[in-house]
Amino acid sequence: MKAVVLCSGLAKRMGGVVKPLLKIAGREIIYRSMKFLENRGIDEFIVVVNRINREKIEAFLKRNDFRYRIVVNEHPERGNGYSFYLARKYIDSDFVLIMGDHVYEERFIDEALKLRGLICDRKPRFVDVSEATKVLVKNGRVEKIGKKLKDFTCVDTGFFILSPDIFDVAKDIVREKDVIELSEIMERAGVEVSCLDGYFWMDIDTVEEAKQAKKIIVSMSVKGREDGFISRHLNRKVSTRISSFLVDKIEPIHATWLSFFAGIISSFTIFFSIPLAGVLYQFSSIFDGVDGEIARAAMKTSKHGGWLDSILDRYVDSIFLSFLAFATLSGNYEWLIAVLAIFGSFMISYTTERYKAEFGESFYKKYKPIIFGKRDERIFIVMLFCLLSFCIKAIYLFAFLAIITNLRVVESVLRALS
Amino acid sequence: MKAVVLCSGLAKRMGGVVKPLLKIAGREIIYRSMKFLENRGIDEFIVVVNRINREKIEAFLKRNDFRYRIVVNEHPERGNGYSFYLARKYIDSDFVLIMGDHVYEERFIDEALKLRGLICDRKPRFVDVSEATKVLVKNGRVEKIGKKLKDFTCVDTGFFILSPDIFDVAKDIVREKDVIELSEIMERAGVEVSCLDGYFWMDIDTVEEAKQAKKIIVSMSVKGREDGFISRHLNRKVSTRISSFLVDKIEPIHATWLSFFAGIISSFTIFFSIPLAGVLYQFSSIFDGVDGEIARAAMKTSKHGGWLDSILDRYVDSIFLSFLAFATLSGNYEWLIAVLAIFGSFMISYTTERYKAEFGESFYKKYKPIIFGKRDERIFIVMLFCLLSFCIKAIYLFAFLAIITNLRVVESVLRALS
Repeated sequence: MKAVVLCSGLAKRMGGVVKPLLKIAGREIIYRSMKFLENRGIDEFIVVVNRINREKIEAFLKRNDFRYRIVVNEHPERGNGYSFYLARKYIDSDFVLIMGDHVYEERFIDEALKLRGLICDRKPRFVDVSEATKVLVKNGRVEKIGKKLKDFTCVDTGFFILSPDIFDVAKDIVREKDVIELSEIMERAGVEVSCLDGYFWMDIDTVEEAKQAKKIIVSMSVKGREDGFISRHLNRKVSTRISSFLVDKIEPIHATWLSFFAGIISSFTIFFSIPLAGVLYQFSSIFDGVDGEIARAAMKTSKHGGWLDSILDRYVDSIFLSFLAFATLSGNYEWLIAVLAIFGSFMISYTTERYKAEFGESFYKKYKPIIFGKRDERIFIVMLFCLLSFCIKAIYLFAFLAIITNLRVVESVLRALS
Repeated sequence: MKAVVLCSGLAKRMGGVVKPLLKIAGREIIYRSMKFLENRGIDEFIVVVNRINREKIEAFLKRNDFRYRIVVNEHPERGNGYSFYLARKYIDSDFVLIMGDHVYEERFIDEALKLRGLICDRKPRFVDVSEATKVLVKNGRVEKIGKKLKDFTCVDTGFFILSPDIFDVAKDIVREKDVIELSEIMERAGVEVSCLDGYFWMDIDTVEEAKQAKKIIVSMSVKGREDGFISRHLNRKVSTRISSFLVDKIEPIHATWLSFFAGIISSFTIFFSIPLAGVLYQFSSIFDGVDGEIARAAMKTSKHGGWLDSILDRYVDSIFLSFLAFATLSGNYEWLIAVLAIFGSFMISYTTERYKAEFGESFYKKYKPIIFGKRDERIFIVMLFCLLSFCIKAIYLFAFLAIITNLRVVESVLRALS
């Protein structure tokens, strides 16, 4: 299946930038749609450009190894319907049509590819309906399209799955008129309408919309299932803000190392101020979410990155706890308890990762341990103890961790084996 | 595809036991062949039995949920050719024919299923050729079969892939004679011969052969790639003997727990005698191989078992090392080093398991770290130090482990990321 990508708009409202190449959360608008489509088997893109943006768009397509054909619209002022019409000679079977200035979440594209015709949203959550292109549907087909419709059924998402017959209608209109809007073609053809409601998609027309889209994409990049209580209710709320700020500025691997160094610095701070060290440790825990968020938001996830992040997390935890033991404990009995605490913290991660290695699926997908003890939760408890270190001895923290973490491991084993 | 299994022999040489149900390394002879075939898509077994063993064999087939049909040979004295002939009415397309007293390794069956006719071995490694059924091949077909052939090409493995035409030849012979050997049918039909050399297969005729087959199966159950140096050159040599002894007596999970308790006992022994504790720890390391060997040899591998074994190994290691630290160290600097050693030991396993969880394949399949530090190697070093504990301080062991294990983790990370 092929896809037609319309990139010939003049982007007057954004000061003449090449809108399809505008980076939202670290990736160009069309990179997002095209990559999702490519991953689902779309094997050629017919990209309609204008004379001004042609060079930049073609460089982008080459850089990212897309299979593409460029069609130049020498008369962009004739409207996006005319641009669409120009793609006709490369299309001989059913095809996808997308706009070069629309962002979609991955699941939208997953679902849309199972549908036909113009994909519409009856419950648009992320667009201003007053600004959107609205559609009146009759008997499952387009009756009217327009921004100013008072009576409408749903909103046009700019995503279509069409058959080549549509070009016959386009041809008729091109003969009649100079300026041709895509909506006019769809209206006259009475294109089928399919509804896909509530997913994230946006038409990017202003700098504000671009910023808003970035924030939404970053907040949707939180991987929910594996998060502990503190992560869900505290860490993610802060980390997604940091990620929104950083996603266009740094690579995920940089965030991984920053979080590691924050953890190491917090460990050394123990020798100056334990409460401050606790706060820094908690901060490094919050920041630990940033690499994953940036990576998912910017479609830059890497298995090597995830692997390295886990290893560095284990090092940070054991260094922080062993430095804390070093600074506060004395005597072999106390140290034995500290070792059990450090080891138990480790084992919580080990049991679940080893599970995934053996079974190929997440431990947390199948089991929900009652006893707390995920990293975000442990670190939060450690921070609380650090803040209270003037009145509670550290050995109580270690004893608490030693018991709770190892109990959780026992719980996990019993659950999985029963 | 269906398979015919000949189980109507009278097993005179083994004192009348039901030979197909004889357990070799924890599983019945026919369980092995039938399970391998079932896993590769054979969906029905035509099992030819005699009046004496019928009940037991049918109970076995039911117990193991095989899809089967029983054919009773009321005249087993008429020979295995006659038993084979009786299976004809259930066969209407190409089929597999196996003997109920032959053991095959899994890879043999994998390869044999790609071939046609009588599968022969030109280089039999595990059978006494003077006792074996020999085949003279001419133009790719059976010319002569017999135990006493002087001039022969290869040895009959008792595994066939035949077309139903063979029954026409069998019918002719049945009309002519009373006692009919399978070899006679194959000879007269001039069955095609395919060669498959050097794999493990055996015809079990005596108690000694059964024992020999068990030993071979257990020694082949060693999972090579993941083994460290000490494991390959010492531990496996001992553990396979233990496994040979235990495979018919205990379940893999019992061996897992035995190995765990041996490790825990060795840890407590530290408080009485460090050299003895070291030896016991090394013994528990050797015994740690037994559960996997038994499980693979007896076709009883379980993901839960492998997972539990890894978790228990981590506990044994950390308990042994922290008890050793408790018994020998003093002061925070020494303990800090001990924590790094315990942690580093842990991280070696963590990095590789986390890798498998992320990438879905073994770390060791892709990378071979130079720095030693696998569990078998660490434990061997710990034992040496324990034996020398009268002249070398334990802190040197911990310092050595802390350096070597963490260096190995760094090496692993650098290799995987470069």
